[in-house]
Amino acid sequence: MSETEKRKIYREAGADALFLEADHLRRYLTGFYSTDGYVVLKEDGCFFVADPRYFEAAEKALKGTDTQVVAGAYPQALELVQNCKTLGVPFPFLPLSAAEDLRGRGFALTDCMPALKKAMEYKSEREIALIQKACDIAEDALLLLLPRLKEGMTENEAAALLEYEMRRLGASGTSFDTIVAFGANSSVPHHETGQTRLEYGDIVLIDFGCKVEGYCSDCTRTFLFGDDGKHEEFKKAYAEVLQAHELVKTSVKAGMTGKEADEVARGSLRKAGLDGYFTHSLGHGIGLMIHEYPTLSPRGEEVLADGMVFSDEPGVYLTGKYGIRIEDSCYMKDGRVHSFMHKTERGLVIL
Amino acid sequence: MSETEKRKIYREAGADALFLEADHLRRYLTGFYSTDGYVVLKEDGCFFVADPRYFEAAEKALKGTDTQVVAGAYPQALELVQNCKTLGVPFPFLPLSAAEDLRGRGFALTDCMPALKKAMEYKSEREIALIQKACDIAEDALLLLLPRLKEGMTENEAAALLEYEMRRLGASGTSFDTIVAFGANSSVPHHETGQTRLEYGDIVLIDFGCKVEGYCSDCTRTFLFGDDGKHEEFKKAYAEVLQAHELVKTSVKAGMTGKEADEVARGSLRKAGLDGYFTHSLGHGIGLMIHEYPTLSPRGEEVLADGMVFSDEPGVYLTGKYGIRIEDSCYMKDGRVHSFMHKTERGLVIL
Repeated sequence: MSETEKRKIYREAGADALFLEADHLRRYLTGFYSTDGYVVLKEDGCFFVADPRYFEAAEKALKGTDTQVVAGAYPQALELVQNCKTLGVPFPFLPLSAAEDLRGRGFALTDCMPALKKAMEYKSEREIALIQKACDIAEDALLLLLPRLKEGMTENEAAALLEYEMRRLGASGTSFDTIVAFGANSSVPHHETGQTRLEYGDIVLIDFGCKVEGYCSDCTRTFLFGDDGKHEEFKKAYAEVLQAHELVKTSVKAGMTGKEADEVARGSLRKAGLDGYFTHSLGHGIGLMIHEYPTLSPRGEEVLADGMVFSDEPGVYLTGKYGIRIEDSCYMKDGRVHSFMHKTERGLVIL
Repeated sequence: MSETEKRKIYREAGADALFLEADHLRRYLTGFYSTDGYVVLKEDGCFFVADPRYFEAAEKALKGTDTQVVAGAYPQALELVQNCKTLGVPFPFLPLSAAEDLRGRGFALTDCMPALKKAMEYKSEREIALIQKACDIAEDALLLLLPRLKEGMTENEAAALLEYEMRRLGASGTSFDTIVAFGANSSVPHHETGQTRLEYGDIVLIDFGCKVEGYCSDCTRTFLFGDDGKHEEFKKAYAEVLQAHELVKTSVKAGMTGKEADEVARGSLRKAGLDGYFTHSLGHGIGLMIHEYPTLSPRGEEVLADGMVFSDEPGVYLTGKYGIRIEDSCYMKDGRVHSFMHKTERGLVIL
């Protein structure tokens, strides 16, 4: 992130210094990956406080940027803000214990998340390009997995293969625990991938994604593993979910709220009598976190705008019978929804 | 966890109800995996508040246990505690925003983490067995990886293969982002696995682990990929790290503090003049979180006791030259340290 963007966030936050400990926020401001450390953003600059596990790598990565690397941990981060009265901290990501400690030292805390969120929900070209790469890798990996699905294979084995291919293609890891659900397991929207074995005629629901330089992709596809002729109701429902999914892409425009976007899909499923089975939100923002801003749900008040990245993932779930979800990672550009996903089918594929 | 154990935690916490939102704490109390939901522990029982994504699976998994599943989200969780004055919440895991909301509703908050921590740092036989399984899978996967390491392979490819094998062997995922560091990258203790390619004579440092039913394993091994005759200093240092690692296993006893355990390894490296390069702690507790209790560091005040699980991971890092870390997941039993790792060499292996 440029110095100008950092200064904008700093001014917006209205605190003497921003004091950040959350992994993804440190990475957002500095671009540097670490599982520990502090970022302090002050009037006189940006500082990354790194312990010995990260100091060497941080010095190397941040050389020539506007971020100064300081060796140390919490005490050294506190030294940097010793003349500050108000600290901007991210209330949704600061543990209460850390907040109480800072307050105990006399700091007034103010929530800097609104300022950060405002910046984070508009993706830069670099961020869009990284998410595109994470989506490309995810789709390529899926295409490598599909011909290798075999009867008797467990959900875990399928997830292992998919994750292997994403890693091999350059992802640094998964965006979240990969969901592979065979048969009736698909009716649990967040099924825990397990030892269920694939059988002829099974529904196969795969919800997965990977990370590239910290940025996430998110994709869901639902298949039939052979057509046993017993899935006519499923096929009809699939067509309805697909229609809702595609309608979002053609009808959602910049200026609509997350709530209005959600209603595009929910209304479409309502006409088919399926809205009662659409038990989650239409979508969520995607970035350094897999669940970000904006929120596309019946309570989403944010106004969609160019530069925002979010999922389009309507689904229906009939307990113990079947589940269907079709999800693309998308972005808003020129006032319209564009998908990051160009490689895999959204229409029903019978494997 | 048994009803008796839950009641003990409830009494220790000294609040009208425990109100838990953190993933690993929900799982600790109920055994049920989810990425959302609330666990409320009250005088009259234990409740799991699950949204529609998890309700079906939670009902099925928790049937016949002492945990009642309630459909809903935050509002339904609040209803369960409407007559409570004091809520026990985990201060290190409760975001400030959630804390402010609860306080705004008139609840007094008290930290229930000391009560939970006291329970969590003593592992049950079931927990020990799950960690053993996670360790077995990690080691088996490493043994499958080693013969497949080839010149020109990237760190990412090696990590992909290792993670694939862990998944295939039954792990639900990794305990943390797998670290594979080739050559001088090994001198960064928390190197971000990347596109560096393996060359003859390289040091290979692999820090990895996987999860079984949420429980983590953690292991590090350091190898030479062929002996180019240029690693005499490395070999001497390796022998010293190995000695420190083994000394912990033979000399650390129940009743010692984390600080004293750390000093066993640090003192051993001091004699070799290498303590200045041992830039992190000796170890950390392992359980549902990869970093738990107790802490084996120069500041570790906890007294080690039977049932505790922790890593033994001395290391030395010479910036830009080489790094060495040898790590086993261990547990305390009959007053002595036992390793979970029985399948892979700790002595220097030249691949």
